Amino acid sequence: MLRDLILRNRSYRRFYQDVAIDEQTLRELVDLARLSPSSGNLQPLKYLLSCDPQKNALIFTHLIWAGYLRDWPGPAEGERPSAYIVLLVDRELAKDTSGGDHGIAAQSILLGAAEKGFGGCMIGAIDRQGLKKALNIPRRYKILLVLALGKPKETVVLESVGPSGAIEYWRDNDGVHHVPKRPLDELILG
Amino acid sequence: MLRDLILRNRSYRRFYQDVAIDEQTLRELVDLARLSPSSGNLQPLKYLLSCDPQKNALIFTHLIWAGYLRDWPGPAEGERPSAYIVLLVDRELAKDTSGGDHGIAAQSILLGAAEKGFGGCMIGAIDRQGLKKALNIPRRYKILLVLALGKPKETVVLESVGPSGAIEYWRDNDGVHHVPKRPLDELILG
Repeated sequence: MLRDLILRNRSYRRFYQDVAIDEQTLRELVDLARLSPSSGNLQPLKYLLSCDPQKNALIFTHLIWAGYLRDWPGPAEGERPSAYIVLLVDRELAKDTSGGDHGIAAQSILLGAAEKGFGGCMIGAIDRQGLKKALNIPRRYKILLVLALGKPKETVVLESVGPSGAIEYWRDNDGVHHVPKRPLDELILG
Repeated sequence: MLRDLILRNRSYRRFYQDVAIDEQTLRELVDLARLSPSSGNLQPLKYLLSCDPQKNALIFTHLIWAGYLRDWPGPAEGERPSAYIVLLVDRELAKDTSGGDHGIAAQSILLGAAEKGFGGCMIGAIDRQGLKKALNIPRRYKILLVLALGKPKETVVLESVGPSGAIEYWRDNDGVHHVPKRPLDELILG
């Protein structure tokens, strides 16, 4: 059931770093995105893959992790992603991705990763200029998202947004990550 | 397998209009979007549901169908969607959806629809001002996408983008809808 896969597909930020993800797996995940809808069928997204420890380390330094966990600088060595997929838009093919292409692609990729027993996080807080330079990405491409991937090493639980309305995720003393979700009735206007 | 579901989830624009989709089904689909990732966990998306023939007809008049099929004004009466989900962003909760929320949500919903034997199309070419007025949508919400849903009544085939590089979908004399997709190697920069 898709619902089970969607429930399993939480945003994970700590991983068994020694569990590798190979390039063929990353290519299969990108293929899921390739076969997903694209606004005006323009297919302007491009992908950079990384499953090499050195390249992973380079990418890692340009990411800002978990904005709401202010005392947590991101996963420690040993708990970092074992792979990344960098989503770019080719500006010669599309002016923007306001139609949602990057979200569609990212969701297909993360669901595919969950199905394969992996997990990850869509990261939008990126030092884009620094990462472009570090990876020698030509000017025509714009970085949209970085998908961090690995074998999840944390428990993520969903709960309902409380009366305070706070949507900030938080981590308890046992390291369990709590994510408040708005109830369905609040999302449906009519 | 997710890949099979993604392959089945083509963009359909002609439907068995008399096959209804009930409100409970639409709510289940929105719940899949609710349980999907949201940038900064802000969850700013809201949803308007329609499975009533009169409301459907109202929504239909504000949509622009299949930009590349210039001689086709959209599905004829009898082949129109039997339901819609209108995706809105609540601007009091998020300034924009550049993180991809609407694409993530739309992909979860369409995959869910495919799993249930339905199908549809993410429509971004919308007379937004007209539709907002027709549905009495308050100013704080912005229409992002309209998801047209129904029991598909057409065959959609994927093919490779040819040497011309043309990505425009086209319909042959038998009414089969052809969608050129860029090959995987073209999408992966490294």
